[in-house]
Amino acid sequence: MTTREILQTARASWPRLAAADAAAKNAALEAMAARLLAGEADILAANELDVAAARGHISDVMIDRLRLTPDRVRGMADGIRQVAALGDPVGRVIRRVERPNGLVIEKTGVPLGVIAIIYESRPNVTSDAAALCIKSGNACVLRGGKEAFRSASAIVRALRAGLEDAGLPAGLVGLVEDTSRASAVELMTAVGLVDLLIPRGGAGLIRACVEQAKVPCIQTGTGICHVYVDESADPGMALDIVENAKASRPSVCNAEEVCLVHRGAAAQFLPALKKRLVDDRAARGEVPVELRLDAEAAQIIPGTPAGERDFDTEFLDYILAVKVVDGVEAAIEHIARHGTGHSDAIVARDEAAQRRFVQAVDSAAVYVNASTRFTDGGEFGLGCEMGISTQKLHARGPMGLEELTTYKYVVRGNGQIR
Amino acid sequence: MTTREILQTARASWPRLAAADAAAKNAALEAMAARLLAGEADILAANELDVAAARGHISDVMIDRLRLTPDRVRGMADGIRQVAALGDPVGRVIRRVERPNGLVIEKTGVPLGVIAIIYESRPNVTSDAAALCIKSGNACVLRGGKEAFRSASAIVRALRAGLEDAGLPAGLVGLVEDTSRASAVELMTAVGLVDLLIPRGGAGLIRACVEQAKVPCIQTGTGICHVYVDESADPGMALDIVENAKASRPSVCNAEEVCLVHRGAAAQFLPALKKRLVDDRAARGEVPVELRLDAEAAQIIPGTPAGERDFDTEFLDYILAVKVVDGVEAAIEHIARHGTGHSDAIVARDEAAQRRFVQAVDSAAVYVNASTRFTDGGEFGLGCEMGISTQKLHARGPMGLEELTTYKYVVRGNGQIR
Repeated sequence: MTTREILQTARASWPRLAAADAAAKNAALEAMAARLLAGEADILAANELDVAAARGHISDVMIDRLRLTPDRVRGMADGIRQVAALGDPVGRVIRRVERPNGLVIEKTGVPLGVIAIIYESRPNVTSDAAALCIKSGNACVLRGGKEAFRSASAIVRALRAGLEDAGLPAGLVGLVEDTSRASAVELMTAVGLVDLLIPRGGAGLIRACVEQAKVPCIQTGTGICHVYVDESADPGMALDIVENAKASRPSVCNAEEVCLVHRGAAAQFLPALKKRLVDDRAARGEVPVELRLDAEAAQIIPGTPAGERDFDTEFLDYILAVKVVDGVEAAIEHIARHGTGHSDAIVARDEAAQRRFVQAVDSAAVYVNASTRFTDGGEFGLGCEMGISTQKLHARGPMGLEELTTYKYVVRGNGQIR
Repeated sequence: MTTREILQTARASWPRLAAADAAAKNAALEAMAARLLAGEADILAANELDVAAARGHISDVMIDRLRLTPDRVRGMADGIRQVAALGDPVGRVIRRVERPNGLVIEKTGVPLGVIAIIYESRPNVTSDAAALCIKSGNACVLRGGKEAFRSASAIVRALRAGLEDAGLPAGLVGLVEDTSRASAVELMTAVGLVDLLIPRGGAGLIRACVEQAKVPCIQTGTGICHVYVDESADPGMALDIVENAKASRPSVCNAEEVCLVHRGAAAQFLPALKKRLVDDRAARGEVPVELRLDAEAAQIIPGTPAGERDFDTEFLDYILAVKVVDGVEAAIEHIARHGTGHSDAIVARDEAAQRRFVQAVDSAAVYVNASTRFTDGGEFGLGCEMGISTQKLHARGPMGLEELTTYKYVVRGNGQIR
């Protein structure tokens, strides 16, 4: 099918899902998980072909992301069952008012309609995204990376069989067959067919969406996250937070990229930071963090001199840019200029500095005395996550099931006129 | 100043407003209202020039919308004071969770930043929009119609003086000086400077925004609203609702444009409808409603045969398209095909039909046994309104103060790492 036909099929299928209650949707998710497990051999065989074709073309890290195992397939099925166990965001009454004229107005959660998702090579995103969409009452059209196309096809085949087992149309989960750039642009411009486009990927994809999308779109992912260490910080806490935020998983968007240090703390803190991130890690056989230092920090500790772009780069690696600042106002200003509105933290005992940072930093998640690594749907108690929005409209931060819905006003009367 | 400079000034001014508490914002609104009253003579003189220049170029209805009087200026000042009296949407804790690890996560209402508003000739929109933006902590950049430019300039001058009286930067309320199409496009594409664009105007403006906007945008206004009269409807109630929805104020977006009648009710209901909307109104000296009838309705009552576009037109006039349908499913299907997702009503006693209509009609407001004319911020208890969103992302239906805000997650810990 063409991309347009897949979209039209999803839209035509959607009303059946929108009318399904929680039990019917959960039964469908259960059937999808069962079909995924039953299709394990097919899925692994398809994945084997993807891995063989990709070898030599993409990095070992990417190959590892692409590769499926029996455990990973079981993990995908478990993921679907976990989504089934979450509460239904559809039909929830967000606000109810009874007006003096007797009208009862209920602001009620409803699905968006058709959600298109552009993502890259991890095959498990295919089943995660489909499960979240079905649970929230939305049809979905998935457009994965071409390296994972055979895997995604096998997974979607299983999911669609599950939908049919449960009496719902297979067209509720569509996979775009064209993995060229053209199909991404087609999704971005499918006005009237796509209610929400979620691009999950690198800065290039996000930029293309900002430039070209004519459908509603939520940008996810890019995180240049800061930890500001105030003069009043507990130094041990600051070291723990900076190391965790930087080095516990550098490849993710909520990892720290920049450490800002109050001038009054720099002489004490920076040598301790260098010991913790470089020397201690090397001594333990862990990857040491490369420090990229502004001029002032470089006078205190050894490290790489920071280049022009180092405070505007999402390294996603064991690299940390370090800058000495005048205080909380300078930190706020730096973050406003160089941040991406994802997650930023202050480590401080001083409550005035905490309050000011929380008020003035305009990011999806603002932390006081905790690691930026907590910006995650599971850690925030949402139970799941479709991505992390770094824009302000509709959804900000981790997107769970509620963020995949909209609302409508249901107004009940007995003949009221105005 | 150029449009870009006005946007940059608004953005640079915004942090001062974002840091202001409710009392400071209310004091600013009070000062703005006072300056508006003090500037009445200037505003009326500027408006006189606008009206004189417009005479002969725009319709009498438009001239009336454009014209200010001492009463209307006082009404604008009262409007600002009413906004001041509303609750502050900024700082409200939307959800609070304490996680097992001790992190306290508060989803907290915060301003969006800079809101750009494109609107047409009614001068009171200038002060209404500015007041709603200031109350919700947002800087605003206004781009009104060229017919009202002198009036809008005088109003904005007064509002800015009020902001300065209250110790806030005048740049928080900007008026675009270029009223050509170019400035509208500039607002639509000011990525990084505009956090939300609200186009308030006709279908052409909305289309231009869908096509060209690269900043987040909320479409407002177009309403092809339906009233479906079921076989089970109380006929008297149905007549009251249809007449009210159509004729109480035909020029507004929540007015009914199409009446769908169940085949089983048509033979009884249509003659009564014709009597109520045409004959009775004419007898009372009111404007009779022109009925545009599909083939089946035309066999029952006299009227204009409906043309090809009559079920896809926002008449905004004393015209009603009438169609006979098979029942609630056919009504739902017709609305899905021809509606604009604004406001649609069912008149029915049958609860199954009510439930099905409420579930399946995908509009901002879905009514049971009440007039569509209630879709309005004031009538919904929001206290005010910036427009009515007909899209699904972020805000749907009447947009009040909360819809002019976003949220951020404020996460407080005592050294938590992951």
